[in-house]
Amino acid sequence: MSFQFKPIGLIHSPFKEKFGIPRQPGLVPEIRATLELVPPYNNPEAVAELEGYSHIWIQFVFHQILNQEWQPRVRPPRLGGNQRVGVFASRSPFRPNPIGLSVVVLEQVVVDGDSVVLELSGVDLLDATPVLDIKPYIAYVDSVPDAECGFAPAAPEKLLRVQFSPQAEEQLQGRVDAVDLRALIIRLLELDPRPAYAAEDGRVYGFRLYDFDLRWQVDGDRVLVLELAG
Amino acid sequence: MSFQFKPIGLIHSPFKEKFGIPRQPGLVPEIRATLELVPPYNNPEAVAELEGYSHIWIQFVFHQILNQEWQPRVRPPRLGGNQRVGVFASRSPFRPNPIGLSVVVLEQVVVDGDSVVLELSGVDLLDATPVLDIKPYIAYVDSVPDAECGFAPAAPEKLLRVQFSPQAEEQLQGRVDAVDLRALIIRLLELDPRPAYAAEDGRVYGFRLYDFDLRWQVDGDRVLVLELAG
Repeated sequence: MSFQFKPIGLIHSPFKEKFGIPRQPGLVPEIRATLELVPPYNNPEAVAELEGYSHIWIQFVFHQILNQEWQPRVRPPRLGGNQRVGVFASRSPFRPNPIGLSVVVLEQVVVDGDSVVLELSGVDLLDATPVLDIKPYIAYVDSVPDAECGFAPAAPEKLLRVQFSPQAEEQLQGRVDAVDLRALIIRLLELDPRPAYAAEDGRVYGFRLYDFDLRWQVDGDRVLVLELAG
Repeated sequence: MSFQFKPIGLIHSPFKEKFGIPRQPGLVPEIRATLELVPPYNNPEAVAELEGYSHIWIQFVFHQILNQEWQPRVRPPRLGGNQRVGVFASRSPFRPNPIGLSVVVLEQVVVDGDSVVLELSGVDLLDATPVLDIKPYIAYVDSVPDAECGFAPAAPEKLLRVQFSPQAEEQLQGRVDAVDLRALIIRLLELDPRPAYAAEDGRVYGFRLYDFDLRWQVDGDRVLVLELAG
């Protein structure tokens, strides 16, 4: 028995690789992305009344790791990357069916002829992610504020202090999106995106964001943004 | 582009048909069901540490309506079944990809040799539902208590009063599960399972529950349980 599903939409997001994406949605409200419905689902009728909801569920495919074998145990980053827990006790993308689930903020529904686009924020989604379904977030059903949550009891509390090198500052100021981009970079890096098992002070890390490579290093509780490389 | 997924488990539930199932999970905590992992996913390692979570997400297939065409607009029961909203603004099972999403209470994980079974409560799932994924419910991410929720702002408030006919009472008392079953029947029927567009006082309704047909009728704000037919 198996089931076949077609994407109903595609995500357009600033994240061009997995590294650097916050580990959960909502951690960085500044992240903007869009969900574009693809034919034949780009029917404005299909999203009628959706703008009455402030939040929606996105069910999507972890498309970059589609052909990897699943393992019964995974190493969640919240446990320092050393302890292994059951794959079904984790939100790891490496699962038997690589289907992801994220609640995101619905900013706006934009319909323009054949184009039906949902503007989102607070996403943790890779660019080009195929979307299988959109559902309204219904608080009286989906919200269980006092659920017991094993090893993931709360949002990470310790934030790093983010500073920009003169070079990074200059590159930033040369962009039209400087103010928003500065805020976004701070929010992404203060969470310390390094995998816990490979976190080294002084080492230069980088990930692709929009059209540049963001290069940075950590020293104690401080992140220094080195450059926005072309 | 399409994606193929295999079920990792199957639901065993008292609901043998769609009619009678509460419209959302959590509305009837008394409903017990189990999720049985199927080979090769029946590996106790895959659910290690899961019992630290009080709630889990079930992503499943609406298997009874797999080959139905989707429509851009659906009629949610909460709107009286007359008004139509966009399919993506609803939790209707009739969707482009018939994937369901329910948060349920994880009562216990029972491992016995090759058998790996999750005991659940508060489910809204049909018997034999194929499950695609299990994820832990992480409150700091998944719980958005003040999300705005369009036309579905709160749990239904008006509950019907449930009474048992002498015949139904006698049939109930002949069962070993009489006490729990009585509570369950009350909770199911007080929600008024009738589709709003086909709700008729005096008409006899029935649905399959466990191994019997539950037959009942509504009169004003009162439900009379007629019989538990064989």
